[in-house]
Amino acid sequence: MAIRVGILGYGNLGRGMEAAIRQNPDMELAALFTRRDPATVQTKTQGVPVYSAQDAAAHKDEIDVLVICGGSATDLPVQTPEYAKYFNVIDSFDTHARIPEHFANVDKAAKESGHVAMISVGWDPGLFSLNRMMAGAILPEGKDYTFWGKGVSQGHSDAIRRIEGVKDGKQYTIPVDAALQAVRNGENPELTTREKHTRECFVVAEEGADKAKIEEEIKTMPNYFADYDTTVHFISEEELKRDHSGIPHGGVVLRSGKTGFDKENTHIIEYSLKLDSNPEFTSSVIAAYTRAIARLAKEGATGCKTVFDIAPAYLSPLSGEELRKSLL
Amino acid sequence: MAIRVGILGYGNLGRGMEAAIRQNPDMELAALFTRRDPATVQTKTQGVPVYSAQDAAAHKDEIDVLVICGGSATDLPVQTPEYAKYFNVIDSFDTHARIPEHFANVDKAAKESGHVAMISVGWDPGLFSLNRMMAGAILPEGKDYTFWGKGVSQGHSDAIRRIEGVKDGKQYTIPVDAALQAVRNGENPELTTREKHTRECFVVAEEGADKAKIEEEIKTMPNYFADYDTTVHFISEEELKRDHSGIPHGGVVLRSGKTGFDKENTHIIEYSLKLDSNPEFTSSVIAAYTRAIARLAKEGATGCKTVFDIAPAYLSPLSGEELRKSLL
Repeated sequence: MAIRVGILGYGNLGRGMEAAIRQNPDMELAALFTRRDPATVQTKTQGVPVYSAQDAAAHKDEIDVLVICGGSATDLPVQTPEYAKYFNVIDSFDTHARIPEHFANVDKAAKESGHVAMISVGWDPGLFSLNRMMAGAILPEGKDYTFWGKGVSQGHSDAIRRIEGVKDGKQYTIPVDAALQAVRNGENPELTTREKHTRECFVVAEEGADKAKIEEEIKTMPNYFADYDTTVHFISEEELKRDHSGIPHGGVVLRSGKTGFDKENTHIIEYSLKLDSNPEFTSSVIAAYTRAIARLAKEGATGCKTVFDIAPAYLSPLSGEELRKSLL
Repeated sequence: MAIRVGILGYGNLGRGMEAAIRQNPDMELAALFTRRDPATVQTKTQGVPVYSAQDAAAHKDEIDVLVICGGSATDLPVQTPEYAKYFNVIDSFDTHARIPEHFANVDKAAKESGHVAMISVGWDPGLFSLNRMMAGAILPEGKDYTFWGKGVSQGHSDAIRRIEGVKDGKQYTIPVDAALQAVRNGENPELTTREKHTRECFVVAEEGADKAKIEEEIKTMPNYFADYDTTVHFISEEELKRDHSGIPHGGVVLRSGKTGFDKENTHIIEYSLKLDSNPEFTSSVIAAYTRAIARLAKEGATGCKTVFDIAPAYLSPLSGEELRKSLL
């Protein structure tokens, strides 16, 4: 029987989940839960019931795993522990600094209710975390590097849009190629913020706005832009729509480490992602871990898990025997 | 208490293990087992007892995990099941086609004796397998590519050395950059053997040997070279020693996959290794999994495992709490 997946929240991530479920024949979208009026929401998949998020508990027996597609700032800290009372749940909580607190809350709720939960699934946190962790365990004497991009930073795009005179805007984070090459060459560089990434902004100014002032305000914005070499391009609304409506992202995690009796040998482990759609890729990662959570729940596991806790075989629809034969 | 590691076999891999153990403060080299006369073998680490491999069983209570550093062709198929009777064991068995058979034998021995065993640990099989498996689970609609090199192929170097008139030689496997770039660009190319790798040979000919004949024999050798564009350089014995005595290797595993309701988005997952020393890196991977095996044994697990079966957290000396805080 297919894994019955519920989706809570139908934004970019929720829609990505719906698309991902279609690519996995052992899963089915069993229900969509929304905070909007269910009558106003129509899934792309035919025949999927749409329920109000507040009635979710009534449908707990119809769902094997509930994917919570809310935002990390205010939604998930409340939603994931709450829904873990009724469901096996999985989220993509990405506020790194608050992960221990979120984990504790979700773990408590899941253990009390006898469910399995998983937090911070995606690529960073998620696959990047896994690669950092494994590379560090394999090469204990070494140095980690993470580069993000080329990709759209939602937070930086929002920051631009808050500036007076800005109608719309999009920001790309771009890794500095020379820095990346130095790491790949095993040079173990010490890199400042400015040396690692540049920021490129595409801005639609309002009629008659002072473009020089907008550019200055962007480039000197503390935390967001002041520590980076930032380029600002003013473009038309049509150009923004035509050339910058995607949500690409990606990045690279590297570890440069030494081995040998005299630390004479250098090794570079590199993991890189180049993604046309950040939310669709994140959903695809969540789909694979949804399979793992459904299996762990069947085995009687409870409590909160992260990518560190799940044996890779749980992600695959193939049996152990098939995996060993075809992929080892 | 430190994990007491035993090493069986003191070749390149065994020496790499000894170096790796030094980099992991929670491990100690408890004993070396050799098929040679123990009196003739001296470890680099002070005070390590050297025992005859045939007496290993007598020392079973001194060792938490025995790392079996034999060859895949004839040593490991016999040694790993045999020593799994007395020890928790780990090996780097790399004959892909025979993995299911080796797994069955080792699993049976380990289950009967109540030990944990792990086979095929390293980077391919090993980390590359893990990345192929995970990328496939995350992007179910896509295509896998593996490129090896630049690095020394022991098998191809041996094949060169068996040719009449060849005194010594070394062969490098080199990925074709254009093919790699096409994959990275999401072009999903169909690649022939010749389009993926080239082979470069450095050959020391014997005095008066027919170099043209040697070159022809190399380039037309079935299975090894005939399907590749091969370059042959004749060099002196001194040059071979000076420039080609290392054992570098590496490679790249890529998956190019599609997502979206209309499969409109492309994603590239790439995992790449650039290794100064193939055996030392392999040993470093084994060291991390040795930690995992020691822990699993403590938890009462038995039977044979592969990289697919082990939750990543087991590889790290850090606690779950530390991992979530610093690496997630």
